[in-house]
Amino acid sequence: MTIVKNYLLGYPNMYIFQDTESFHFSLDSILLPNFVTLHSSFRSILDIGTGNAPIPLVLTQMTNASITAVEIQESSYLLGKKSIEVNQKQNQINIIHGDIKQIKDQWESDLFDVITCNPPYFKVYPDSHFNRNDFKTIARHEVYLTLEQLLEISRKLLKNNGIFAMVHRPERLLDILCMMRKYNIEPKRIQFVYPKKGTLSNILLIEGIKNGKPGLKLEYPLIVHRENGEYTEELKKYVRGGNL
Amino acid sequence: MTIVKNYLLGYPNMYIFQDTESFHFSLDSILLPNFVTLHSSFRSILDIGTGNAPIPLVLTQMTNASITAVEIQESSYLLGKKSIEVNQKQNQINIIHGDIKQIKDQWESDLFDVITCNPPYFKVYPDSHFNRNDFKTIARHEVYLTLEQLLEISRKLLKNNGIFAMVHRPERLLDILCMMRKYNIEPKRIQFVYPKKGTLSNILLIEGIKNGKPGLKLEYPLIVHRENGEYTEELKKYVRGGNL
Repeated sequence: MTIVKNYLLGYPNMYIFQDTESFHFSLDSILLPNFVTLHSSFRSILDIGTGNAPIPLVLTQMTNASITAVEIQESSYLLGKKSIEVNQKQNQINIIHGDIKQIKDQWESDLFDVITCNPPYFKVYPDSHFNRNDFKTIARHEVYLTLEQLLEISRKLLKNNGIFAMVHRPERLLDILCMMRKYNIEPKRIQFVYPKKGTLSNILLIEGIKNGKPGLKLEYPLIVHRENGEYTEELKKYVRGGNL
Repeated sequence: MTIVKNYLLGYPNMYIFQDTESFHFSLDSILLPNFVTLHSSFRSILDIGTGNAPIPLVLTQMTNASITAVEIQESSYLLGKKSIEVNQKQNQINIIHGDIKQIKDQWESDLFDVITCNPPYFKVYPDSHFNRNDFKTIARHEVYLTLEQLLEISRKLLKNNGIFAMVHRPERLLDILCMMRKYNIEPKRIQFVYPKKGTLSNILLIEGIKNGKPGLKLEYPLIVHRENGEYTEELKKYVRGGNL
């Protein structure tokens, strides 16, 4: 395991610690904090499955709300803790090492204005062949946290009319919408992200409101790369308070 | 009521009869036949709520399959019949005046390779204030055909693995996806259409397969107008065999 200190993608005034041999930090975690609706009245944000804490770090560029971040894997938690410290955000971000499924039982209901999550994307089937203790598997597959558990936990922890925002894969759209409705988090905004012109979408951004009224907005799509491989101007504008 | 003979939008070699005082022919009906998957092996297509038959007329430019078109409103049916005749498509398109809810009971199951529909977009609520006999109301609101009835009918009439394709409004996405799954028509492809750059989507194109396996593709979005109001090049290319 080799730990390196990198600039935070899109935010060259910030650092993040990464393990070069494990899960690489990706664009997904930059897009979500730029997508989520943030009102100045918001006081408290929870990031579930925070990893090395990219989402909380980006959020500090846009809000003064206090941010709680939970991570189940110790190695990621330690990277996140170090990243928060090197950016001197310990006063705004409180990172916790633990399992949100247990932590939520120790907490009151209706605690947070916003919950963000970059969850594991892939379903686990009884015949799935992989090492369930592997670091990457846990981050990518629903070993410790299924979509349904995430929504159930979020319903409990969100204030009434609180915002749930998630980055996911378009292939899971049906599961996501049905599960959000099941747990009274009404889908309100969707944005599809496309790697470049003429491709299929590979990233889904979605926001819902706890006990919100039906009515879904399809935001204008976001294209990541130009034909020459550079980032598009629209993506650069998307990264608020940053410099991609 | 004033009947006029117009060129079919995007297909200047074809005509369509329209009633100037009623429901205007729109882009929706041109997009759907260009969106739907058409295999050369397909023999039979059904268009439900065909109006003055724009979808069947466009389909004749892309397939040799025989097309059945059903319309409940007599005035629209007559316009459709006249439009089919002036384009000399009577051998390929069979237009029927009637209510698909009754007609389906007289038909066998598993008849069609493809069902297309540009249905009424708006839900009817007990307190909806409008004249339910009004021509436009019937075309736009779910007075005679709800989304659920449409899916139930389509499940019966589609062959196994047959294709259901519909144009609708993005606001109804959740209802549409849940209702398709309920009637075993698995959503497979979605394309969102945007009036111009930076706007919200106002048209949804969706395709499902009867008894299909889960797995949804988000097609690259379609933008209709350039900044100067002209049609985009991508829309012009989208209109297969036409000339927009």
